[in-house]
Amino acid sequence: MVMSKRLAAEFLGTFWLVLGGCGSAVLAAHFGGDGNPLGIGLLGVSLAFGLTVLTMAYAVGHISGGHFNPAVSVGLWAAGRFPGKDLGPYVLVQVLGGLAAGAVLYLIATGAADAELGGFASNGYGERSPGGYGMGAAFLTEVVMTLFFLVVILGVTSRAAPAGFAPIAIGLCLTLIHLISIPVTNTSVNPARSTGVAFFADAGAVPQLWLFWVAPIIGALVAGFLTRWLQKTPG
Amino acid sequence: MVMSKRLAAEFLGTFWLVLGGCGSAVLAAHFGGDGNPLGIGLLGVSLAFGLTVLTMAYAVGHISGGHFNPAVSVGLWAAGRFPGKDLGPYVLVQVLGGLAAGAVLYLIATGAADAELGGFASNGYGERSPGGYGMGAAFLTEVVMTLFFLVVILGVTSRAAPAGFAPIAIGLCLTLIHLISIPVTNTSVNPARSTGVAFFADAGAVPQLWLFWVAPIIGALVAGFLTRWLQKTPG
Amino acid sequence: MVMSKRLAAEFLGTFWLVLGGCGSAVLAAHFGGDGNPLGIGLLGVSLAFGLTVLTMAYAVGHISGGHFNPAVSVGLWAAGRFPGKDLGPYVLVQVLGGLAAGAVLYLIATGAADAELGGFASNGYGERSPGGYGMGAAFLTEVVMTLFFLVVILGVTSRAAPAGFAPIAIGLCLTLIHLISIPVTNTSVNPARSTGVAFFADAGAVPQLWLFWVAPIIGALVAGFLTRWLQKTPG
Amino acid sequence: MVMSKRLAAEFLGTFWLVLGGCGSAVLAAHFGGDGNPLGIGLLGVSLAFGLTVLTMAYAVGHISGGHFNPAVSVGLWAAGRFPGKDLGPYVLVQVLGGLAAGAVLYLIATGAADAELGGFASNGYGERSPGGYGMGAAFLTEVVMTLFFLVVILGVTSRAAPAGFAPIAIGLCLTLIHLISIPVTNTSVNPARSTGVAFFADAGAVPQLWLFWVAPIIGALVAGFLTRWLQKTPG
Repeated sequence: MVMSKRLAAEFLGTFWLVLGGCGSAVLAAHFGGDGNPLGIGLLGVSLAFGLTVLTMAYAVGHISGGHFNPAVSVGLWAAGRFPGKDLGPYVLVQVLGGLAAGAVLYLIATGAADAELGGFASNGYGERSPGGYGMGAAFLTEVVMTLFFLVVILGVTSRAAPAGFAPIAIGLCLTLIHLISIPVTNTSVNPARSTGVAFFADAGAVPQLWLFWVAPIIGALVAGFLTRWLQKTPG
Repeated sequence: MVMSKRLAAEFLGTFWLVLGGCGSAVLAAHFGGDGNPLGIGLLGVSLAFGLTVLTMAYAVGHISGGHFNPAVSVGLWAAGRFPGKDLGPYVLVQVLGGLAAGAVLYLIATGAADAELGGFASNGYGERSPGGYGMGAAFLTEVVMTLFFLVVILGVTSRAAPAGFAPIAIGLCLTLIHLISIPVTNTSVNPARSTGVAFFADAGAVPQLWLFWVAPIIGALVAGFLTRWLQKTPG
Repeated sequence: MVMSKRLAAEFLGTFWLVLGGCGSAVLAAHFGGDGNPLGIGLLGVSLAFGLTVLTMAYAVGHISGGHFNPAVSVGLWAAGRFPGKDLGPYVLVQVLGGLAAGAVLYLIATGAADAELGGFASNGYGERSPGGYGMGAAFLTEVVMTLFFLVVILGVTSRAAPAGFAPIAIGLCLTLIHLISIPVTNTSVNPARSTGVAFFADAGAVPQLWLFWVAPIIGALVAGFLTRWLQKTPG
Repeated sequence: MVMSKRLAAEFLGTFWLVLGGCGSAVLAAHFGGDGNPLGIGLLGVSLAFGLTVLTMAYAVGHISGGHFNPAVSVGLWAAGRFPGKDLGPYVLVQVLGGLAAGAVLYLIATGAADAELGGFASNGYGERSPGGYGMGAAFLTEVVMTLFFLVVILGVTSRAAPAGFAPIAIGLCLTLIHLISIPVTNTSVNPARSTGVAFFADAGAVPQLWLFWVAPIIGALVAGFLTRWLQKTPG
């Protein structure tokens, strides 16, 4: 597949991930006001994030591989499944796609009569952690969650796994990761997702952005090298 | 497949989409009264809409293609996947199916001791937007949501995508779209769904119906032409 | 497959449907007391019912066909897909499986310190309808829901549908049906499910049982004959 | 596949099951405080447990078989599908994986400003049952739930079942089991999951641990021998 189509697919996929995942959090999680069970809550947001990946991995995964996430691209490279020379362009369009989605979401969200953006679904630790978790717990959580995200991605796309099911397993793994860790960091495991909304959130999101690049990439690297051994077919 | 069966399949599918999606909203979303967490809320309604499409696409998709939505038929035509001469009959039976479902839902809903129809799951903007979003935000949301709905539909039904999974990806994409955008417009992305209930809702739904024809069709056309380039196999 | 195994599979499947579906309603729907969002609510019960069918259809569907429901057996017979001579034994073990599940659920539910069985997930109309829907609305709802349940079952198990996905479509169709109609009749579409718990519920459930045999079977017959025409391959 | 990789896969899978399932319960179920519908509740925890198995069964099921649970290993052995000599090492690494996950979850959970571990998602009966269910009801529930878990696992991995779908059916079966039985025992059906968190919970969890070894294993044995007859292909 030519590079322009691959990059377009990554842009669209990351755009949809941020618009859908963060959009559901900003627009629908608290619908009706705090304490109103009509809102979709953390469960609905978790489902939304997972379904963005499930849907676009089926739609354009055969074009670009369906990473939509710099940590995923890095993990695939560490596992020997993605050429290092493509890392730069992939990560760039992923970040651009995330930022474009953040801008469109900003336009929509400010269209409400009583718009209040607040955290704008940004990731954070310490005072910015939804449940008040410190930097250490946040770092550990992002490393471990991304590590297992990549273990699942690399396993389900290995030759021995049943074909066609990968987008289901990968999308629902992202849902699962959110079900566990939204209270800790608002869940990133994806530097492009964190970057895409940080600049539209209230002050304080951008200075914490480093953790949501460093920790996911460490987790992805560990998973990549681990999986090289685990999934290698003896022969 | 003969045209009569294709049209019957589209009628049944759109009927089920409106009865199931809008039915869950009217009958079950607020069950037990406002603030009662027994009700299925926006999350349950989102799931219901998606499952109507997932189930009927598996059941009759091999007969009619499983559009159940005028915007989908238009998008498929724009992508060169659906003959223009079939657009008229498809859209007609989709609208008729939606209206028939609206009537049956009206019969059921008015069978409750304390029936209160209210908005009857109609779509709207401004004062009729569930979250008070203005016309601009509503228009943008419907365009973007339908655009990505079609990107997913056209991608997952392309030759390079794994066979058999399309109804899962498409149905869950509709769930995702509702998770994001019910607060904005009550989510249409489907002119037949909007039309099917508008005439049974309180006054004010019908005058806003134009937006839920124009915006989804614009989104579908953009996606159709975009996908012509994106999914074209070089050769 | 020998008849004894087919009947054992139907017994187990219907047992699981009633234990899982009605069990989640009795044990977990209101967990923590009315108004407590920890409970799984109507959404969780809907999911549970669907997953009983999804799981057992994958587990024993290749043995018995995976009906677990007298209305489904009747609908398959009407569509020319199930021999009339097997209807009797199938329906009998389905009802026995439902009753056995009702008994086990009764044993578990009465093991709580503050056990209160109440409706015990029984189906009903009028004063016994969860949302106060009259007999007419209840009858119409059960006919239409069962009709579409069979349209989906017969469609997704037809030769032209993609193989292997049927349990997903059928299970999630049952989830969808519950998302729509629990408020109306507590959702039956399955006479064995209704019978299985009626005798353990408070007085009043048994006298209404007739509707949950008659309406689902009418819906199934209509779907069976309709699908004979719709799914017939020309040739 | 060499034994070291199989054991690594079982360790990772059981680690993920306990970290994800119990982690969602400890970190996210009550998010925002009791009565706050933002938290994922029993429904979200049920989904999380199921998705840990769905994701890792797709990722490493082809390496180790994807048991992640001593009762599953025992049931597969009883059904004649797993060699008795591998039971010891499998059960050992499953328990070690569970304990490691318990430790990591402890580290994360204590990183919150107002950390309160309480039951730490441990299983229990009597006063430790979430809904106050006695030992008899708890024992019966764990036996029956594990029995059907194994019926589904053994059925969907039999030769006659459609290939590739097993992780979906098995994972969602675990979700279903939690939807039914969290109020009774906090749901185990997995001795490694119970053991993994018991030592980090408040006093009282460890003395009840015996039930969550004995009851699941009885259920698994019954299912194993039953399925030998049920799924045997005549020939």
